[in-house]
Amino acid sequence: MRAVRVHAYGKRPSVDEVPEPAVTGPWDVLVQVGAAGLCRTDLHVVEGQWAEKSGVALPYTIGHENAGWVREVGSAVTNVAPGDAVILHPLVTCGLCRPCRSGDDVHCENSRFPGIDTDGGMADLLLTNARACVKLADGLEPAAVAALADAGLTAYHAVRKAVPLLYPGTTCVVIGAGGLGHIGVQCLLAMTAARVVVVDPNEGARALARDLGAHEVLENGDDLVDSAHVVLDFVGEQGAERAGLAMTRRAGSYFVIGYGGSVDIATIDLISTERNIIGNLVGSYNDLDELMVLAARGSVRLHTRTYPLAAVNEAMDDLEAGRLQGRGILVP
Amino acid sequence: MRAVRVHAYGKRPSVDEVPEPAVTGPWDVLVQVGAAGLCRTDLHVVEGQWAEKSGVALPYTIGHENAGWVREVGSAVTNVAPGDAVILHPLVTCGLCRPCRSGDDVHCENSRFPGIDTDGGMADLLLTNARACVKLADGLEPAAVAALADAGLTAYHAVRKAVPLLYPGTTCVVIGAGGLGHIGVQCLLAMTAARVVVVDPNEGARALARDLGAHEVLENGDDLVDSAHVVLDFVGEQGAERAGLAMTRRAGSYFVIGYGGSVDIATIDLISTERNIIGNLVGSYNDLDELMVLAARGSVRLHTRTYPLAAVNEAMDDLEAGRLQGRGILVP
Amino acid sequence: MRAVRVHAYGKRPSVDEVPEPAVTGPWDVLVQVGAAGLCRTDLHVVEGQWAEKSGVALPYTIGHENAGWVREVGSAVTNVAPGDAVILHPLVTCGLCRPCRSGDDVHCENSRFPGIDTDGGMADLLLTNARACVKLADGLEPAAVAALADAGLTAYHAVRKAVPLLYPGTTCVVIGAGGLGHIGVQCLLAMTAARVVVVDPNEGARALARDLGAHEVLENGDDLVDSAHVVLDFVGEQGAERAGLAMTRRAGSYFVIGYGGSVDIATIDLISTERNIIGNLVGSYNDLDELMVLAARGSVRLHTRTYPLAAVNEAMDDLEAGRLQGRGILVP
Amino acid sequence: MRAVRVHAYGKRPSVDEVPEPAVTGPWDVLVQVGAAGLCRTDLHVVEGQWAEKSGVALPYTIGHENAGWVREVGSAVTNVAPGDAVILHPLVTCGLCRPCRSGDDVHCENSRFPGIDTDGGMADLLLTNARACVKLADGLEPAAVAALADAGLTAYHAVRKAVPLLYPGTTCVVIGAGGLGHIGVQCLLAMTAARVVVVDPNEGARALARDLGAHEVLENGDDLVDSAHVVLDFVGEQGAERAGLAMTRRAGSYFVIGYGGSVDIATIDLISTERNIIGNLVGSYNDLDELMVLAARGSVRLHTRTYPLAAVNEAMDDLEAGRLQGRGILVP
Repeated sequence: MRAVRVHAYGKRPSVDEVPEPAVTGPWDVLVQVGAAGLCRTDLHVVEGQWAEKSGVALPYTIGHENAGWVREVGSAVTNVAPGDAVILHPLVTCGLCRPCRSGDDVHCENSRFPGIDTDGGMADLLLTNARACVKLADGLEPAAVAALADAGLTAYHAVRKAVPLLYPGTTCVVIGAGGLGHIGVQCLLAMTAARVVVVDPNEGARALARDLGAHEVLENGDDLVDSAHVVLDFVGEQGAERAGLAMTRRAGSYFVIGYGGSVDIATIDLISTERNIIGNLVGSYNDLDELMVLAARGSVRLHTRTYPLAAVNEAMDDLEAGRLQGRGILVP
Repeated sequence: MRAVRVHAYGKRPSVDEVPEPAVTGPWDVLVQVGAAGLCRTDLHVVEGQWAEKSGVALPYTIGHENAGWVREVGSAVTNVAPGDAVILHPLVTCGLCRPCRSGDDVHCENSRFPGIDTDGGMADLLLTNARACVKLADGLEPAAVAALADAGLTAYHAVRKAVPLLYPGTTCVVIGAGGLGHIGVQCLLAMTAARVVVVDPNEGARALARDLGAHEVLENGDDLVDSAHVVLDFVGEQGAERAGLAMTRRAGSYFVIGYGGSVDIATIDLISTERNIIGNLVGSYNDLDELMVLAARGSVRLHTRTYPLAAVNEAMDDLEAGRLQGRGILVP
Repeated sequence: MRAVRVHAYGKRPSVDEVPEPAVTGPWDVLVQVGAAGLCRTDLHVVEGQWAEKSGVALPYTIGHENAGWVREVGSAVTNVAPGDAVILHPLVTCGLCRPCRSGDDVHCENSRFPGIDTDGGMADLLLTNARACVKLADGLEPAAVAALADAGLTAYHAVRKAVPLLYPGTTCVVIGAGGLGHIGVQCLLAMTAARVVVVDPNEGARALARDLGAHEVLENGDDLVDSAHVVLDFVGEQGAERAGLAMTRRAGSYFVIGYGGSVDIATIDLISTERNIIGNLVGSYNDLDELMVLAARGSVRLHTRTYPLAAVNEAMDDLEAGRLQGRGILVP
Repeated sequence: MRAVRVHAYGKRPSVDEVPEPAVTGPWDVLVQVGAAGLCRTDLHVVEGQWAEKSGVALPYTIGHENAGWVREVGSAVTNVAPGDAVILHPLVTCGLCRPCRSGDDVHCENSRFPGIDTDGGMADLLLTNARACVKLADGLEPAAVAALADAGLTAYHAVRKAVPLLYPGTTCVVIGAGGLGHIGVQCLLAMTAARVVVVDPNEGARALARDLGAHEVLENGDDLVDSAHVVLDFVGEQGAERAGLAMTRRAGSYFVIGYGGSVDIATIDLISTERNIIGNLVGSYNDLDELMVLAARGSVRLHTRTYPLAAVNEAMDDLEAGRLQGRGILVP
């Protein structure tokens, strides 16, 4: 089969012919990839930023946002069958540790992450397990939803955690209405009655936020100091951290979702206002299942641009050069 | 009446004869002070560290940890009557703003703080309001509980917020078993079945923690990296911040209670482990009411040393010099 | 002033000229009534069903759903001023008991209920207190929102409690889309992404539910057995209780809001499915404040019909005879 | 191997020689039974009360409270290995449905219940799966803890759900301090600072409750009307239902754990006080894991009496005749 392989860090991947993966374990599921989202993290992987953390041996296949159709299943698999259309949770988890048994499978103590520390899904086939498969409702196409598997799931997860804080009359500031943030805005409008204020310096992102129904859209947050019950920071670098904390009101919570920068705050400033700083990772399997409900009813829509798998480097060029509006999707 | 008055920052207070405060508003409550706790914050006030924040006009009376007996009440007061023994919540709150109406009165939008921004309770009499008065159960003496009004309340509040995270099998690390921390340890043991690990470089504090029943007591936290579901940091400076975050495991929460230092952490380190940093202020009125239940049944005990009001500067000397084991209590 | 007075149970009230109530206590607020909702409970009061429970002395003024304008305030009132447009929480609460201090003021240990156990608001003026007043946003007219003060507030409160159970993918069945239920449907759609299924035997109510956006509208619940994560029963009698419990799935919750009938269930049927039966009363002050946010943004709308105050008995006739579509509103 | 087999309902089981069960599926775990708790449910099964519900074909092996040692595991099992001492969650669950993935595995959509609907654990060997196995800490013996697998787990689960309601100052009434209730009392004392009041007509049970540290122990609940924030009803029949509801105060919760009777209450009595009726089933795997933490530290202790497996009918006689103080444990 074809696969997008990294052979050396700092060098673009190539589309190679490689052996097909095989179902060997009782939990294994082999998926025919219908679509693979292209993520900025893929660029970072290629650059070698994840080399040490992942410890993966080169060459290997990247891609961690996938949807497709089940081709074959292991002996213990009962939740999906060959032919089922599925979207894949990015992690392959054990199901037996405390986090897995608490619905918090992202913190699984024995997980693998295809596309990061093992072969991923920019390929004709991807090997995952039964615990990663969410069946798609009729009418949901893999190419339309693949990028919800990671980017969308991260945004959904943060919003889901914030819902109990966002009763009518509260304000939620969203910093950054890009790939993740514009999903976050849609989730907030679908699941809460909070006032949603978007801050983004990019005019295109602001126009999109307005189209999606944000109640207020601003170029910067200068007028928002101490105003937000919740801040969802999808940027997490270049000053957004400081601005996000400044916008958070007494007893409010600042959610860190984007990353790259750092949080620096005097302990007296945390305690005198009793504010919280909440870390956020990708969502759980249940989160993905719920997000698919929102997608199926049209409450969450992704803007995408499709490329054939062989055009992966063209897509990466477009992403790097800022020419890619919406999410790039590779279709094998 | 006598009152401990600050006349100039940087100069020790004097015990002056001043006019008695009078009940004028319908909510007012005048309390005959039975005991006033001495707090490190009182030293900071005298040094002038709060001058700008409080904006209080000199001279004024300090003292913000009080218990005593009601002497007189305003026309609208129904919850206490002259003669009642009471402990006083440190804030005078409005009862009408959203925080007050949510049980979160510490974030009252119209509060005063006797001893900080208005005359306090190192005096024969203190003027507060009905919303600050918690009646003492039979057997609780003002001198025995006064320091629970602020120091104890802060510790209780943090523990109360952490309780839902501390199911059997979890670990709570307490950094600092001093004035606040040793109350925190007692609250944890009374309200949870978590394993309580205390870290304190001071041998006396460690001995106290062991006596109170902490499950493990350590000089430092080097062996605790990634081990705690919850860290309660009663120090918040001098490296405790960094150590506390390091002890917090994936999906865990680091509670900042002490202050003086700062939290500095890369956003990638927050999101990749999905940890939380929780700010903590003094507790609510309901918290104080609950803490008095623990005190009345003997689950929480304070170590105190009593001074006459006139010996306030001797007490301050002892506190500054580290000669004061337990909490200093001034008795008018 | 004019007031709708009950002189004898079983006999219709008359519109009498009575002395104006006066501000006497520090918390008192005197309100010029802009609108008074007519409720089935008013009919029950007139019939004498509440005689024993309320213990009120006749004659007295009925009416417990009010909005209007502040005319005069007591000495301690700071949250409203003469001229302010307000909607009134139905209870006059103390602010000092544990429920009041937990945001749960409906369970105030010292409350009065104007229109039930003391003079109410079908009159030119109503005496209440500061804790009952929610200021109306610009654009909200007393006559348009008055009925939200009790009927709407009860519906909102039940939905607010159910929100944490209603994540995307769950089903909420609403039994009865009448005066309370049609507000409940609007609150559900504004605050959750759950699937909302309405069951009502009345075709007009079903048409309204469809207009409001319910996802499914049925004449009866025969096909809904074991299907609902949450059932909101706005009827609570005539078999709705049994049907509502039958629709509740394993680990689900049946919310009792309407009343008149009874819940009868074998304990084995409760424990083997681990279902919950949740009692619901009118909402808190904070609930009313939040509901006004939904009203101000147009997310919740009431269907009303206006009568002059003097036509109270005509309005009662229409209500009794089933000729009153929407809520009857008396305007003094 | 030997097994306690029911051949005909209404007739006592016999201890037969039967073929050993075998590991066939990837998740299977074969356990050498160390102890099997005898439960009143076993008597009901033998009497035929469960015949219709379980649909099990006779003859079959009873027993659903087990601990022992792993003998053999399937190909996918990673959490236990032969030789491990384990206690077994009573259900064999799928791990893939929404309840399983939310930590709520008791509501698994594809579960089996050994001893009820398939061969159970009053035998030398029991076949279960990996998801049911909790490893025992050093020092915990199967015979000492086996009865915690169902009776203890049910009590723990109810208490765990009640913990958020039981802050200091609240009252929890425990109805029935027998097999389940005396575990409930220990869990309450270990995990909350609530006041624990036990009601039991049996003097021996009351003496045990006093020994365990209950704050108040009563023969009946006549003086407890409207007093309890939470009632844990471990009886659920013979009037306990009515008495339990009567003891529950406004906004309080009545937990139904025991069964046999029925809850009958007018909807107006539920809504006017806003009380809740909470169904309770056996606990989750995580609950069992947590309960083992309490057992390992000595916070929860069971009173037991041991019989050899062959003496099952003697044990049943003792249980039926009320001669069995504590829990009967069969040791193969």
